[in-house]
Amino acid sequence: MTFTTRFTRLVGIELPVVQAPMAGASTPELAGAVCEAGGLGSLACGMLGAEAIVAAVAQIRSRTDRPLNLNFLCHREPAADDAVLRRWIERLAPYYAERGLEPPPADAIARRPFDDEACEVVESVRPAVVSFHYGLPAPDLVGRVKDAGSLVLSTATTVAEARHLAENGCDAVIAQGAEAGGHRGMFLTEDVAAQVGTMALLPQVVDAVDIPVVAAGGIGDARGIVAAFALGASAVQLGTAFLRCPETALPLAFRERLDHATDETTVLTNVLTGRPARGLANRVVNELGPLSADVPPFPLAAGPLLPLRAAAEAAGASDFSTHLAGQAAPLGRAVPAADLVRTMMREAAGIARGLGEDEA
Amino acid sequence: MTFTTRFTRLVGIELPVVQAPMAGASTPELAGAVCEAGGLGSLACGMLGAEAIVAAVAQIRSRTDRPLNLNFLCHREPAADDAVLRRWIERLAPYYAERGLEPPPADAIARRPFDDEACEVVESVRPAVVSFHYGLPAPDLVGRVKDAGSLVLSTATTVAEARHLAENGCDAVIAQGAEAGGHRGMFLTEDVAAQVGTMALLPQVVDAVDIPVVAAGGIGDARGIVAAFALGASAVQLGTAFLRCPETALPLAFRERLDHATDETTVLTNVLTGRPARGLANRVVNELGPLSADVPPFPLAAGPLLPLRAAAEAAGASDFSTHLAGQAAPLGRAVPAADLVRTMMREAAGIARGLGEDEA
Repeated sequence: MTFTTRFTRLVGIELPVVQAPMAGASTPELAGAVCEAGGLGSLACGMLGAEAIVAAVAQIRSRTDRPLNLNFLCHREPAADDAVLRRWIERLAPYYAERGLEPPPADAIARRPFDDEACEVVESVRPAVVSFHYGLPAPDLVGRVKDAGSLVLSTATTVAEARHLAENGCDAVIAQGAEAGGHRGMFLTEDVAAQVGTMALLPQVVDAVDIPVVAAGGIGDARGIVAAFALGASAVQLGTAFLRCPETALPLAFRERLDHATDETTVLTNVLTGRPARGLANRVVNELGPLSADVPPFPLAAGPLLPLRAAAEAAGASDFSTHLAGQAAPLGRAVPAADLVRTMMREAAGIARGLGEDEA
Repeated sequence: MTFTTRFTRLVGIELPVVQAPMAGASTPELAGAVCEAGGLGSLACGMLGAEAIVAAVAQIRSRTDRPLNLNFLCHREPAADDAVLRRWIERLAPYYAERGLEPPPADAIARRPFDDEACEVVESVRPAVVSFHYGLPAPDLVGRVKDAGSLVLSTATTVAEARHLAENGCDAVIAQGAEAGGHRGMFLTEDVAAQVGTMALLPQVVDAVDIPVVAAGGIGDARGIVAAFALGASAVQLGTAFLRCPETALPLAFRERLDHATDETTVLTNVLTGRPARGLANRVVNELGPLSADVPPFPLAAGPLLPLRAAAEAAGASDFSTHLAGQAAPLGRAVPAADLVRTMMREAAGIARGLGEDEA
């Protein structure tokens, strides 16, 4: 199997494996381990301030000088629409009452779109790659990232989105199939029902754009990696596969839920943050969703859930937790990330050779 | 690439390609062409009476004596629940009024579950394979099919369904990813939101059962075939890929819609028949669905749509048509089925060899 691809040459890495950013679950340790193993480690910056990003990058670079990916969100910051937030808090009121909690003032978890300040961090840190979720920031910001010497990636969930990204400055596109854990990168469509599975999406994206395509969604082990290359991928992005690695920041309850995950455990839901994301279903997802028309725009839905989550988690329950994971969760392994990367690629080479052989 | 697999040896075919049954779209010509090309042709029998099945099999066998698959449904026949049907007809009333049509008496399109009479046809025709959709018929019927010398296949949309089929007499299981066109084979779950994409489903099913696994869903061309084998499949089942072949029974309007299909064109909807099926969205799907709680059980939803469909189609509109197709529809080619099978397998061999090679 050819590990050298257009993508590895473009980025200057050894192995065509990208660790998905996974805000909340990934750590500098995880990113550093994947970089050291020859893949592309990613740091989710959407929930970090400038200082925290700089510190995390310094931590990774004290360990390895290999290419690194900084990931940012570029949703439109929602206008604080009191009526929408009030309706959401009303939907949550019974849960507050149940636990004797006072409904909190509406307050979002800070998930800032990429802005001038974040761009200044990129310009000072100069990562090999900057990847975006939810489309791209304004053209001047994209230009500044490129001028800083960083390659620009973003996620497409449809062929139309991939074309848009290729035409607007992306150096590579991540094709995210519906199996993927975490937030859908969708930005030209809001139609969750029309989201496309990796098997169908990937070859259509490869046919539609000239830039390298990184496959994401449902790739749980070496078999998925070889499948993605057969479909035309130039690299793979794995998130859920890394979740059980010791380098992640997963609470024990999340780890235990992953140990018992099946193919049917996850759903696409918008009730946890306001945007569709795939994760382990829980009480609030089942009772208010999985898709609710009452949620305020991303990320405003998350804030009013926080006190409920804290109270439930203190009692050992995941009823309001954001445990994001993909449909291949059962395929993940609880081994150090570098071992996982190297083992998977060695196994992938074996599978590919086996496919190439003709039976006597 | 190894074209000889556990599945081809079991069935006695040359190429590990199954043509999906596709009631309404497939024909004896299509099944015969696929059989002649070395794959496994399938005849959808769920909407045919005994005589029609016998005649179709005779037509295929006048052309080829290679292994053939007869496909049957095994849903539970719904009790005629007047209230449910009345509600459905009320939902459709505005469409009837719009066209000046009288709402018809509730009447289903005949889609019979596999029963004694169908089993007698199997016993007389003795096809190499009998495949079921929606689980399995009663154990005595499964036993009679096996005693007739036919292999038994059925479709799983989850690991739990695959295990159930393996434990209840199936000789091979079709793992149907969410990308697949047509009706979901789901029978232990009704949760459309938890349906799994092929990339994630296939390796988990392969890990869970000892019988050969046939991959279905989103496999549009040679790339998908190689991907399925990388994921552990023993054969692939393609439906949508064959839709534009000249041997299908597609109305011109359906053919033209496929010519313009994109990755986003299809949705999973239950409004066309009462069971979730993936197809090209149209007016009734968009306005009443894609998923409606008001539909009567399969197949009762289809009957009251028939007059609307006929009137719309006469006026050149597909507003009420059942144009089922999968998410890889754009990858299909309008070439004769035998050419398609042989070309895809030749291309698949090339792709597999390419993956096996190491770059100098």
